[in-house]
Amino acid sequence: MPILTSPAAILNVGVAELAAGAMTHGAQVVQLDWRPPADGDRELGLLLARLEDDADDPVGARVRAANALAVERILSARPMLVGVRPASEVVPGLGPRTILHAGPPIAWSRMCGPVRGAITGAILFEGWAETPEAAVELVERGEVTFAPCHHHGAVGPMAGILSPSMPVAVVENAPGGTRAFATMNEGLGKVLRFGAYDQEVLDRLRWLASTLGPTLNAALALHGPVDLRTVIAQALQMGDECHNRNAAATSLLARRLASSVVRSAPGFLAVQALDFLAQNDHFFLNLSMAACKSTMDAAHGIEGSTVVTAMARNGVEFGIRVSGTGDHWFTAPATVPEGLYFPGYGPADANPDLGDSAITETRGIGGFAMAAAPAIVRFVGGTAEDALGYTREMQRITLTRDADFALPPLGFVGTPAAIDVRRVVETGTAPVINTGIAHKEPGVGQIGAGVARAPLACFAEALRELGRRLGVGGA
Amino acid sequence: MPILTSPAAILNVGVAELAAGAMTHGAQVVQLDWRPPADGDRELGLLLARLEDDADDPVGARVRAANALAVERILSARPMLVGVRPASEVVPGLGPRTILHAGPPIAWSRMCGPVRGAITGAILFEGWAETPEAAVELVERGEVTFAPCHHHGAVGPMAGILSPSMPVAVVENAPGGTRAFATMNEGLGKVLRFGAYDQEVLDRLRWLASTLGPTLNAALALHGPVDLRTVIAQALQMGDECHNRNAAATSLLARRLASSVVRSAPGFLAVQALDFLAQNDHFFLNLSMAACKSTMDAAHGIEGSTVVTAMARNGVEFGIRVSGTGDHWFTAPATVPEGLYFPGYGPADANPDLGDSAITETRGIGGFAMAAAPAIVRFVGGTAEDALGYTREMQRITLTRDADFALPPLGFVGTPAAIDVRRVVETGTAPVINTGIAHKEPGVGQIGAGVARAPLACFAEALRELGRRLGVGGA
Repeated sequence: MPILTSPAAILNVGVAELAAGAMTHGAQVVQLDWRPPADGDRELGLLLARLEDDADDPVGARVRAANALAVERILSARPMLVGVRPASEVVPGLGPRTILHAGPPIAWSRMCGPVRGAITGAILFEGWAETPEAAVELVERGEVTFAPCHHHGAVGPMAGILSPSMPVAVVENAPGGTRAFATMNEGLGKVLRFGAYDQEVLDRLRWLASTLGPTLNAALALHGPVDLRTVIAQALQMGDECHNRNAAATSLLARRLASSVVRSAPGFLAVQALDFLAQNDHFFLNLSMAACKSTMDAAHGIEGSTVVTAMARNGVEFGIRVSGTGDHWFTAPATVPEGLYFPGYGPADANPDLGDSAITETRGIGGFAMAAAPAIVRFVGGTAEDALGYTREMQRITLTRDADFALPPLGFVGTPAAIDVRRVVETGTAPVINTGIAHKEPGVGQIGAGVARAPLACFAEALRELGRRLGVGGA
Repeated sequence: MPILTSPAAILNVGVAELAAGAMTHGAQVVQLDWRPPADGDRELGLLLARLEDDADDPVGARVRAANALAVERILSARPMLVGVRPASEVVPGLGPRTILHAGPPIAWSRMCGPVRGAITGAILFEGWAETPEAAVELVERGEVTFAPCHHHGAVGPMAGILSPSMPVAVVENAPGGTRAFATMNEGLGKVLRFGAYDQEVLDRLRWLASTLGPTLNAALALHGPVDLRTVIAQALQMGDECHNRNAAATSLLARRLASSVVRSAPGFLAVQALDFLAQNDHFFLNLSMAACKSTMDAAHGIEGSTVVTAMARNGVEFGIRVSGTGDHWFTAPATVPEGLYFPGYGPADANPDLGDSAITETRGIGGFAMAAAPAIVRFVGGTAEDALGYTREMQRITLTRDADFALPPLGFVGTPAAIDVRRVVETGTAPVINTGIAHKEPGVGQIGAGVARAPLACFAEALRELGRRLGVGGA
């Protein structure tokens, strides 16, 4: 308890060095951590001022109304798992010999190891080539078309590879008029999404397509659609944040569908499906992602809205999309997440940030809901107090709280939702993302988990484009 | 930030009124909440002094060694769910026409409404009588023997009624050489444990005996024993405290056993069993209780130990057993828990505290692990901060922390375990118990949930008996 007396008590705001002189003369200094808006960037500061909510200014009024609509679309979303179908039957615009990948667009020549490995595996799985070498030749002859999952209403974890014969979860958000898709989660170990493509991986992909997909689809037809929003809300009260931890949501789903699986499949197939669900704590991740994608797509494309509708990484670049800037990606180099590594691995082995799973944070769960999942800090690093801190920090850059996603450790306050590009730029607070860390070589798999930050440059660039579109700035 | 200057700064310990005079003269007073040990009871205070751990005193050394052994038995317990069998086949000493009930011993004439109702139901279920009236006559003719579940290695929630034809979970704790038993949880609504005995209740009891019990037993035979300690440890990281909240543990268990249920039962029976598990979030409660009973029985009967090995209520009296005082019950009147009531009900409708489920708190979960389950405060009352507070408070009256039951919100500290009669009496801190609240009339069912406190009188009496047995006090 410092007792403030003479000679001097000083409150220093901003640069700490300014008070150093006074301190050497015995002054008591209280240092306030403060930075100027947009880190002192004059152009961005002026742009922020022009884009503020303001009922009396045409631009400010338009931004305010657009964001209110985006928030309403997010909070009113009701993502329902309605089926599991082959991607070729349900994913719109998925042409033959097309492979979707995570993150913003990227050419084969620039792709990272895990993504190249996973593409090789998908080509072998589809039977477009017989050997890995032949698969790569096929690609280099230009005979495979690549596109981001996000361009087709889909999302995929890590490499995020989705090819036409893979079964995908179909998630419908009727209030928003959107549909989203995600592959079946393969579990841990040697899996396609980390770039592995050996026989074990291909066998599993074939089993997912031949057995798990049809079995779950039949069970869902009997059971009826599953309200994923409710499952997520329950799981947030059970230690999941529904990105890096999905044990509760997977258990709730498996328990709920079990009898329908039995009623709709021959016994030996039901046993296989139930065993797979019992052994894969991450099964719900892909469903969580599709739920978030269908939600955020409903908030996308609102002119004037500064709400972020996608954050995604292809292992080379981090990209975001914003509601009011159409389908443009604002990108910056992807960095290596900070986190905990499995024994024998370290940052030098790590691939830069990868995967569409940051759609969960875009929706306000995952890293934004860390307060719900204090146990996860043993996996991504930090303390239980840090977990609360991440959620509190994200409240600074979001427009609302989702009361349906209540966080018990924070007195049942809702998850922070609707990332506002303006608040990110103004405060210099980058969205936090819980993530797995992939080895940079294909097929090694997961080597750790940690916390990544979205690059601020993406948000500054998006703000400039918003200014241009609203006629208030930009070159 | 109070600045302590003249005229006077006073630290007042204990009775607040003593500092009132100084405060009126402008003194700064810091009030320390302090009570004398054992609330100033001279006899108990002397007894506490004689029973303290002390290597140089024969009594103190004996108590210390006895408690170390009790703690070791608790921490080394490995309760495994090995099967589900008819009570008559496995519960030791369960004679014909014998019915077990919750709490300490009590005669029919003094039993509360829900217990009488549940006994009536059990007699109808067993076919010992055809009508409720005939069932009561049978009892009043002295043709039914009653005994506490605890006297037969069993535990039962609320009325805790267990009759010979009911299926019971068999839990083996090999390191402790103990076995414990609990009935199948019936779910919520009209159920025997709240004293209901209409056709719906009896039909469910028959289905549990004819279908669920044998189905689960066959599934367990195929799957192998389930380590309940591990399930509880996982569930504590998923928002359960495994007394009033069992959603995670039930989900984990159902998901894990699902494929074995399918492999070992005809399809239509597997569907029934899996549907029942899917719809009953409390299914794990009875297994949690049996796990705790098998653990605490291993710590029972150690001469000189001051560790509480059972807390249980029969709806009229609250009773405890202590490791070093044999099979004696120390009882006091049961009180109505404080809590939240369902619409239309209030404390005037409530039965006093009821059930063997406080075995979970005796083991250090339930109310002792409230920190793990902040969401439960919406059910039992209070705030998330209160949930942390209960666990911290229970640390004052327990001998150890169970590192295997880590509590994420408290920085992964273990649950407080091994309630020490000495610490309860010394601090006046009564063990906290999460509980359902039953209507006092049979068959109405649950009308609320709340937090009960064990009566301090039980612990004072136990301390006196410990003193007598150790030759250091008592009349």
